[in-house]
This record gives sequence, C-alpha cells and structure tokens, in this order.
Amino acid sequence: MHTTMPLSETPGQLLTAMRAKNPLVQNITNFVAMNIAANVMLAAGASPAMVHTKEEAGEFARIASALTINIGTLSPDFLAGMKAAAEAATEAGKPWVLDPVAHYATAYRRAALAELMELRPTVIRGNASEIIALAGSQSSGHGVDSGDSVAAAEGSAIAIARRQGCVVAVTGEVDFVTDSRRSARILGGSALMPRVTALGCSLTCLVGAFAASTDNPFEATAAALAMFAVAGEEAAFTASGPGFFSPIFLDRLAVLTGETLDAKARIVSA
Amino acid sequence: MHTTMPLSETPGQLLTAMRAKNPLVQNITNFVAMNIAANVMLAAGASPAMVHTKEEAGEFARIASALTINIGTLSPDFLAGMKAAAEAATEAGKPWVLDPVAHYATAYRRAALAELMELRPTVIRGNASEIIALAGSQSSGHGVDSGDSVAAAEGSAIAIARRQGCVVAVTGEVDFVTDSRRSARILGGSALMPRVTALGCSLTCLVGAFAASTDNPFEATAAALAMFAVAGEEAAFTASGPGFFSPIFLDRLAVLTGETLDAKARIVSA
Amino acid sequence: MHTTMPLSETPGQLLTAMRAKNPLVQNITNFVAMNIAANVMLAAGASPAMVHTKEEAGEFARIASALTINIGTLSPDFLAGMKAAAEAATEAGKPWVLDPVAHYATAYRRAALAELMELRPTVIRGNASEIIALAGSQSSGHGVDSGDSVAAAEGSAIAIARRQGCVVAVTGEVDFVTDSRRSARILGGSALMPRVTALGCSLTCLVGAFAASTDNPFEATAAALAMFAVAGEEAAFTASGPGFFSPIFLDRLAVLTGETLDAKARIVSA
Repeated sequence: MHTTMPLSETPGQLLTAMRAKNPLVQNITNFVAMNIAANVMLAAGASPAMVHTKEEAGEFARIASALTINIGTLSPDFLAGMKAAAEAATEAGKPWVLDPVAHYATAYRRAALAELMELRPTVIRGNASEIIALAGSQSSGHGVDSGDSVAAAEGSAIAIARRQGCVVAVTGEVDFVTDSRRSARILGGSALMPRVTALGCSLTCLVGAFAASTDNPFEATAAALAMFAVAGEEAAFTASGPGFFSPIFLDRLAVLTGETLDAKARIVSA
Repeated sequence: MHTTMPLSETPGQLLTAMRAKNPLVQNITNFVAMNIAANVMLAAGASPAMVHTKEEAGEFARIASALTINIGTLSPDFLAGMKAAAEAATEAGKPWVLDPVAHYATAYRRAALAELMELRPTVIRGNASEIIALAGSQSSGHGVDSGDSVAAAEGSAIAIARRQGCVVAVTGEVDFVTDSRRSARILGGSALMPRVTALGCSLTCLVGAFAASTDNPFEATAAALAMFAVAGEEAAFTASGPGFFSPIFLDRLAVLTGETLDAKARIVSA
Repeated sequence: MHTTMPLSETPGQLLTAMRAKNPLVQNITNFVAMNIAANVMLAAGASPAMVHTKEEAGEFARIASALTINIGTLSPDFLAGMKAAAEAATEAGKPWVLDPVAHYATAYRRAALAELMELRPTVIRGNASEIIALAGSQSSGHGVDSGDSVAAAEGSAIAIARRQGCVVAVTGEVDFVTDSRRSARILGGSALMPRVTALGCSLTCLVGAFAASTDNPFEATAAALAMFAVAGEEAAFTASGPGFFSPIFLDRLAVLTGETLDAKARIVSA
C-alpha cells in the first residue's frame, strides 16, 4: 500500500466501476492520437468513439457518457465541432476533459483555447509547459514537448483549478493533480513514455472514461493517472525500447485488475 | 476441410488471384483506421490508396480496381468525396464496399448513409447492430460497438441483400454473409479482435481487395472474411493481449498461403 | 567502413548533432503516416509537431527548425496550409522537404504539386515512379507504389536537382541521392519495408530532422537515408514479418549510435 491520499473510492474500485459501465466516450482528438487512444481505451475497458464534425458532435455528446477534446491538430472545422460538443456536454451535465496541446505556440491556438476554456471543462490535463502557460506565466515549451518540470507547474495548476472550478492534472515524471482544495502526486510510469507519441493524449481520453463512471472528477483523474503510471512502470520492465513499449503497455492495461492497481498505485497527498 | 459451402472458387484460390493482381484499392475510411487498414492490406497482398477529397476522389476511383467507403469519422468534405468516388466506381463498373459505422447514432449520419445507399454498394459490411438498424429494425447499438448478436441480424442482412441487390456481411463472433439467395456462416477469429480498434474497418478494405479480383462479390466477401477468421484464430494462439495481437495478426496475414487458408477456413451453408 | 563517398561530416556525426539539437520539425503529412512518422522521429531523437491548418501553419513554420510536406491524403484545406508553411519556411531560411506522393495520379494532385514546386523545396524525396514523373518522363507508377526501379530514376533525379537547385532522393531497394553535382547510392534496408505503410513518408520527416541540424542538405539527406537503411537492415534480422517489423525498427532507431551508424552505413559515390 503506497497510497497515502485519503480517497472515498480507491483507483481499483473506480477501475472496476469503469469496466462494469464500459462508458461510451466521445473523443475529439488529434490525428496522431486517434488510433493509439482508441486502443488504450479498448484495452482499459472503455468504449471510444471519435466523432468530430459540427453536424453531429453536439448530438453525439448527449448520447456519450463523457467527452474529451484535444487541440493537437486543430483546424476551424474541428474547433467548430469541439465547441458544439462541449456546449452539449455541459448542458447535459456530462463531464468533459480538455487537453490544451501546445496552446501557447500560435495566436490561432491561443484564441481557440480561450474559447474552449469559457465552456468550462471538468478536467484539464496537460504537460508542465502547457499548464504554466495556461496560468498566464512564461513557459519553456518547445513545440509539443514540455520544457518545464511538473514541480514548477504545481502552483499554476492550483491557480487554474481555483479560477476555473475544475480539476487540473499535470503529467510528467511525477504527475500532479489538484482541484485547488486537494492535491496529490502520482508516482510511476517510465522514461520511455514521452518517446512514444500521443500517450499523453491517450491518457486524456482515459481520464474521460473514468470521469464518466463516478461523480468525483478529482478521484477519477487520479485513478486514470495511477492506471497509466502502474501499467507504464510494468511495461518498462520488459520493453526493449519505444517500439515495443506500445504493445506491452496495451497488454498491461488490459490485464491490470482493480486489486493490482490498488496494490501498486502510489498516490501521495501534496 | 471444414468448408461445406459449395463455391465456384475456394478462398485460397481467390487469395492467390488477389495477390497475383495486387489490386489498387481506394479506401475512403476513418482516421482511426487509416494506418492499420493500410497495413492489413499490404500484409495480405493488396495495394491500398487513401484518396478522399472530392477534387480527385472520382478520378481516382476510375483508376483503382475497387473502392471502399467507411463513415466512421464522417464530415461534409469526406461525404462529398465518398459520393464522387461511389458514383465514378459505379459508372466504371468497379465494385465498392460500404461500412456503415454507427449510422444509427445521429441524424447527420442517418442522412449521409441514405445518400450512400442510393449509390448502390456492391457489398455492405457491418456489425450486427448496424445491419439491424439498416434494415429498419430497432438495434441495441452502443456508440460504435454492437449490442446485438450476429444471429439476431441474419434476417436483416437477407432483407437488405434482397432489397438492394447486394452482398451483406455481418461480422462478429460468427460471421454471416448473404446475397439473399445464398448465405454462409464463417467461423474463426478471436475474442481479442473487438479489443483492437478498427479491425472491422480494415476487413472492409480487404473485402474491397478480394472484390477487385473476381466477378463474384459473394465469394469474394466470404474469402476475405475467412482470411481474417483464420489469421485471427492463429494470432490468438500466441497473442498475450490486444497490444501484441496487431503485429502477430499482420504477420499471420502475410504468411497465410492459399493452401493453408483452404485447409483451415470454416465456411458453412446457412 | 563501407562508405566511399567523401563527406564533410559522417552520418554518425550528423546523427549526434541532430540528437543534441532535438530539432522541432513541423510535418504536414498524410493521415496514414502521422502516427508512425511521429514515432520514427521520437525514436530517432527529433521533436515532431503535426501542425497543418493555414491559420497557424505559417506562424509555426517560423518557430520550427524545418518543415516537411507530404501530399499523400491531400485536400484543399491541407494544401492551403502547406503553401503558407512552405512560404514562411523559405522566407525564414528554414529547410523544407517535399514528398510528392503519387503526384502523377490525378489532375488535382499534379496541379497542387506544381504550386508546391514553385515554393522551392530544399529536398525532394520520392519513389522511382514519382521522381521519373516529376522530371516529365513516363513512369509506371501504380497508385502510391512505384512501378519503376531506382536505377531507372537516377537521370530524372539529377535533372530535377539541376533544374530546381535542390537535393533529390529516390528511395527503393538501393537509394539514390543527388544535388546534381554529387550523387551517392545508399545500400541497406529490407524487403519488408515497402510492406509496412508510410515508412517512406516517415523517412521524409526524418530527412527534415537532419536538414534542421546542418547547413548541408545533401549530406543531411544521405545521413537520414543511411540511418533508415542500417536500422531497417538490423530490424530485418529478427522481424518475422511486416507486423513485428515496426516495433523492432523503432527500437533499432532508438539505440543506433553515431558510431554504429558510421560503422555500418554503406554510402557509395555514384
């Protein structure tokens, strides 16, 4: 037992609940992530659907149990679908998760993110540079990769969580999650994970699956992060490099039980 | 020899013919499927080309030997390309295959599918919920996953095949294929297959490759389904989970000979 | 030591320099390639970003160290982004690499390529049929696959390099690279590589990473091709088929050192 954070439901209980529900999660994500994110969700036990065009994104958000939005390969058509879906999800009381990929990089991206932030995401998950820039501070982001440490982003995460009334997760070597009143660090994972593209994007989708299965978005986010951290740590034991990391990691997600997740998760109060 | 269906050409003969032709198949498919579908086709012995924009989709359909259309991540731009390509394929006498992914989910998708159905697909391949809904009955589809058994969709498949004058395939635990006069069930596959995203979409593309290589779309469809069923069953012997299923399955597709396919295929009259 | 080409910097030195720089490379590539190309670049040591929409593609090209453009799944929206990015890269003195996928196949594609060629790519990488058609000769291309040998395309490559003042690479069984004054052949690779989709597209992106790290685009291109040839040859020793080739190849890219690359690279003057 490595978890020192008091939780109303353990990550393992939330994983079991998520699998029992097999939640339909709508993901409007980037082209790089679509395939691996769908495979991560299927392996973990959720039911992903990639539905993005504005002609149906809002209608579908009312059917789905949760929505995730990722601006990695943004375009006006996708942005229109994101806004329609986020509005519908909020109206229908469905949780939605925002992944602000490299939002600081261009004027177009900054403006798009501002519009999405007004639609009040339930959870925001980003890397350290993204969260620092989102709080209005100067980040060292380099393209889509973080140039900052998670520790340097903790204050920014708390500030955003307080201002927006949402959960904020910063992922990296040690993850950090906060709703401004409670904060936790999640240990685990592997140095190979940033060398496989779109695993962070896939985690955003998995946060949506957990958020669809409980009314507690803080604990849902911590559980999804813990599942990734444990499966990633296990995969690294046998992965020879970034190429084999993906199939091994998917297999570990698929066999990870609630009991094993609780035994191995390391979630500590921050 | 497990095949009890009388066939003018065996699946193995059709596989050998397909590989000899190495047919150029145009696939307008969804973003999740594009990479794995291309890899499935290359492994099996076809030449895939993903060409979708309306400015060239029709011209390309006249060059290609077959066309496949999948509405998984539909948008108005893609729909325009699909219609241009389907019209050109029909005019040029090229077979085309339709994959009506979750067509029942939204009004936009239902309307788009109705337009595509009017362009007279040669083969329709879907899961049970999709085929039941296409016949006008009430399905239990959940997002993009089937909530119904293949057995429950057999009557719907026959009704659509008769009404449209096409081949209809329903894939699942046991596959079903019909042209309304003849029907067959194809056994094999693995429970891991629905846990890997877009394998059904990839199968739709492979049906296109077989349909490009014979004038008999019923037997072409049965052969493609049998190839998937045999390679899937073989892959499941060594796959530790959904992650490793993909590379193993691709390798099995690549080494499967016509002789082995005929020895292992299980196609029974229905 | 198999390299007989006099080079100012060896491939291994250029690989070490590329990894030290970890260049941010903007890739406007096709939907089939996006994931595997990003994984190839991360494994090799570059920082890929897929940013395509015209609203930000030009601004991003000024941030990135190099740009790559691939017309595999072209559409008007993507073409507008490609032109904005190529113009910005040229203005900012950043190298950009063009991959003219099946440009001979349709009128739309031919017209788009003509527009991109006017924006003066630093490097063009294609298969033999693409390069022959680009020089204005009759090629035997079949969809996206080459119907011609690299040897048959060498004269076309030299003619294009002279006319455009750029580097031209033709990849296939034996690769050929030229700036019209110097030409080299690069040996290695594996017959499995054309059976894995989008490896050529991924190589185009990797050329961008090397071109971002030196002022010598001819040697950058030769080094990227040599890295692919060596890692591909090594991967083929243990790959059972096209399915396992991908993870093995990514792992080989990740562990390949500058020293090993220099020891194994076979670059011969042509």
